[in-house]
Amino acid sequence: MKKLYLIGMGPGGHQYLTIQAIETLKQVDVFFMLEKEGRGKEDLLRMRQDILSHYLGDTGYRVVTATSPARRMDAAGYKEGVQSWHDEKRALFEGLIADELADGQNGALLLWGDPSLYDQTVSLIADLTARSDGALDFEIIPGITSVQVLTARHKIPLNRVGENITITTGRHVETCDPAEIDNAVVMLDYNASFQRYTGQNMDIYWGGYLGCPDEVLVAGPVDDVLADLLQTKSEVRDAKGWLMDIYLLRRRKSGEI
Amino acid sequence: MKKLYLIGMGPGGHQYLTIQAIETLKQVDVFFMLEKEGRGKEDLLRMRQDILSHYLGDTGYRVVTATSPARRMDAAGYKEGVQSWHDEKRALFEGLIADELADGQNGALLLWGDPSLYDQTVSLIADLTARSDGALDFEIIPGITSVQVLTARHKIPLNRVGENITITTGRHVETCDPAEIDNAVVMLDYNASFQRYTGQNMDIYWGGYLGCPDEVLVAGPVDDVLADLLQTKSEVRDAKGWLMDIYLLRRRKSGEI
Repeated sequence: MKKLYLIGMGPGGHQYLTIQAIETLKQVDVFFMLEKEGRGKEDLLRMRQDILSHYLGDTGYRVVTATSPARRMDAAGYKEGVQSWHDEKRALFEGLIADELADGQNGALLLWGDPSLYDQTVSLIADLTARSDGALDFEIIPGITSVQVLTARHKIPLNRVGENITITTGRHVETCDPAEIDNAVVMLDYNASFQRYTGQNMDIYWGGYLGCPDEVLVAGPVDDVLADLLQTKSEVRDAKGWLMDIYLLRRRKSGEI
Repeated sequence: MKKLYLIGMGPGGHQYLTIQAIETLKQVDVFFMLEKEGRGKEDLLRMRQDILSHYLGDTGYRVVTATSPARRMDAAGYKEGVQSWHDEKRALFEGLIADELADGQNGALLLWGDPSLYDQTVSLIADLTARSDGALDFEIIPGITSVQVLTARHKIPLNRVGENITITTGRHVETCDPAEIDNAVVMLDYNASFQRYTGQNMDIYWGGYLGCPDEVLVAGPVDDVLADLLQTKSEVRDAKGWLMDIYLLRRRKSGEI
């Protein structure tokens, strides 16, 4: 039997790890670190290595790095593109588990944030486990998400009284009817889709590199902060070479100023 | 200046605390523990005290317990009821900060899960801080939510490919059009409103006392597990005297079995 832990490491800084995550790290023989090719890759791999060094020192475990396949944008359609991307990723996991993890060993995937939120690793590993005929088992260790750090830093609740919370993607807010957005956290927005929400009595609470030393925050009415936010995004992305950001869009209710 | 930390303690077990939360606990002079009157009150206060003892020992800090006001169900309407409940709660916090926390001291509210999710403490403390003329400051320390433990235990992602996530209340799913629910986490459901979702190709992933030693899980098609789930809920509530539970409702897509 091989065991794989999907460990939520929080948004970056080692202070966000839970005691459960740290205790799990200590049981692991082989750490798999996957990142996509791109300008943030080295930084993100180093942040993971820093967390391991901080809690485990530099020896007594093995680290296997691999390049995570990127979703191809030239595929026939969105679903087909995602499907073939997942097939590639599943094959990569399968190969790593076969070649790099011995029977009786514990492996771990170190995942940013929480393993369950906008990451299909859980489904792919569940598939492999189901097909393994008892040779593979896995466990999920929850982690703090950037959503939680976003609201903590802005000192706001995720929702107002009795209100629903929606967590969605840039892809959705870029094309949906703006009227359907009242209180939504937007992740994976590569096109600054908050620009569609001007003139609608909407506030934005934005955060870049949340939980990291170079964290940046912008908040205010979309109409007022739009120019500043676009400039901030452009500046920090140019300076660092990459940007991870999320934001909350919240429609002001009648009576609120 | 007085400082108040709103510390997310996760869903119950001390293994869910983050390093940031533990480091913050060590800076605190006075811990405020609030619970509603009711059958779970003593258990929930003891769980908090156990966490403090585990990380800080039993001395060197002060604990102030208070009864949190309950929302009155006889109020004119839902919004009015919530409003007067919040007024009462704000007055309670104001009194505790004035009477029990000295200038220069750090206080903390120990909150289950994450302070930002379905808890209005953040708004109330933000109000008091804004009114304090610089005499009060506060900071939020994120915590693991029961939502994250729910998906970790059931080994599922929070959403399927490209899908939105909704976090809502029993009050909402009890009255909304069932067709609007495709993938929703339901919190604070006192009326087992999942019963409305039979015959709709819907799966449920339910958890009681998540993250605690007596955690219970039930999962499957709503149509198949409904009777078992109602009986489980009734049995564990009778045995323990109280129940904290949440669940995820997920509509199967065409083609899924």
